[in-house]
Amino acid sequence: MLLIKIGGGQDTNFELISQDIANISNNSSEQIIFVHGANAARDQLATDLGKPTKRIVSPSGMTSVHTDEQAIEILTMAYAGLINKRWVSHFIQNNVQAVGLSGIDGKLLVGQRKKVLISQVEDTLRGTSRKVLIRNTYTGRVNQVNTDLLNILLDGGYMPVITQPAVTEDGVMINTDNDLNSALIASEMNVEKMVVLFEAPGMLRDINDPDSLIRKISREELPNMLPFAKGTMKKKVLGAMEALDHGVKEIYWGDSRIKDPISNALAGKGTIIS
Amino acid sequence: MLLIKIGGGQDTNFELISQDIANISNNSSEQIIFVHGANAARDQLATDLGKPTKRIVSPSGMTSVHTDEQAIEILTMAYAGLINKRWVSHFIQNNVQAVGLSGIDGKLLVGQRKKVLISQVEDTLRGTSRKVLIRNTYTGRVNQVNTDLLNILLDGGYMPVITQPAVTEDGVMINTDNDLNSALIASEMNVEKMVVLFEAPGMLRDINDPDSLIRKISREELPNMLPFAKGTMKKKVLGAMEALDHGVKEIYWGDSRIKDPISNALAGKGTIIS
Repeated sequence: MLLIKIGGGQDTNFELISQDIANISNNSSEQIIFVHGANAARDQLATDLGKPTKRIVSPSGMTSVHTDEQAIEILTMAYAGLINKRWVSHFIQNNVQAVGLSGIDGKLLVGQRKKVLISQVEDTLRGTSRKVLIRNTYTGRVNQVNTDLLNILLDGGYMPVITQPAVTEDGVMINTDNDLNSALIASEMNVEKMVVLFEAPGMLRDINDPDSLIRKISREELPNMLPFAKGTMKKKVLGAMEALDHGVKEIYWGDSRIKDPISNALAGKGTIIS
Repeated sequence: MLLIKIGGGQDTNFELISQDIANISNNSSEQIIFVHGANAARDQLATDLGKPTKRIVSPSGMTSVHTDEQAIEILTMAYAGLINKRWVSHFIQNNVQAVGLSGIDGKLLVGQRKKVLISQVEDTLRGTSRKVLIRNTYTGRVNQVNTDLLNILLDGGYMPVITQPAVTEDGVMINTDNDLNSALIASEMNVEKMVVLFEAPGMLRDINDPDSLIRKISREELPNMLPFAKGTMKKKVLGAMEALDHGVKEIYWGDSRIKDPISNALAGKGTIIS
């Protein structure tokens, strides 16, 4: 089984990616699970609605989104509505029988909601910094996957197309991390190969130099990558560690912007972690 | 098998309806298919985005929505995103294992796109009227249901929660009529009972007089109801004719705003058509 995860960046080429997946799917018997983000569409919709996405920085320096009640609704419209159905439509156009699912459908992705977020707020004028507690956040972490639902769809010949939001045990929608979710889905579904695409050729030692691509990383070396990992790459490194620790054999990081992005990643044109 | 269809009006009580469905579902072995609209949420989102829903009147006097490229995206966000996941979340909270699906998922609802819409435009100043052809509309009519996808979900213990958009054979999203879709799903799935809820006690002879409720209507009498049927009730009458002509035995129209709305409709508190 193959899991393919793609971010929600602005330059995502829906057509090239779905064509490549159609080729892989139609030329092998391998079952595929597809996980996608939609952050660019979410941010655009939030801005268009005059409620721009709020970001906070944790005391450890990690940037994350503060998802309040309005934000979880906007997220749901962009992720489970616009972008999930856009992916499904491209797959259908390429003769892949895709079924879109959010984490709430059939309690596919169940997690715990955070009671509080801690935001480190800088006062640049005074040169001081203080911690602010944020309650009532619709954010959390997934710890349970409904493998039964995925299996009946896969066995029926349907490719699950999975996205946010996830859900708490008692039915509250929460924003969670797609890289960690992908790692958990992969381990629960006994996925052996995982392809993760983003808008870079792979792991770069220097983010401004495409020639600094690192071809291979072992599990042991992964933590050493954290200092090079800028922005959301940090979460991809953590997701890869999770996935490898829970049974995934190989992870392929590759460029989402090129032709045949998945085939190229699988052929080792990006970064292979094993 | 029971099919429950509910409109997308502003006063929809998600909690009362999902509680009632949970009671029915947990106290019988009857399989349930749920179909819903989201027109109020769609119109609100369209207004909030500064792109209000465009309505046209056909030469025969039927009002319908003109769905252009922006409108089909807004519809997808409101129907398949916000409201579909809101329903699923209420069902999950009431221990019903619900899975949200749009018509595009697994090509659940395949239809033909209209080549052209005809709009009858009144010039009130001059007292004249002319026909305007509208091309490039994302509107159509469903003629095919993927019963295989519904059956594997139902057999797996999941309640399908179905909404717009539908899809053409070649993967283009289209806006279609939920009443006609419900009738087609019911006939293809061999549904015997169909409950249709809306914001009125049932079929009223006089829309302003709740005491003018018509308790029973036969198939033969249905066309006589068209003159009483105001606005979207016309489409419900046409949907009921379709459903009865294709094997559904009984249709129950009931009030979506009361407690236990489905149980009450099934008990004959609204209008029964058979």
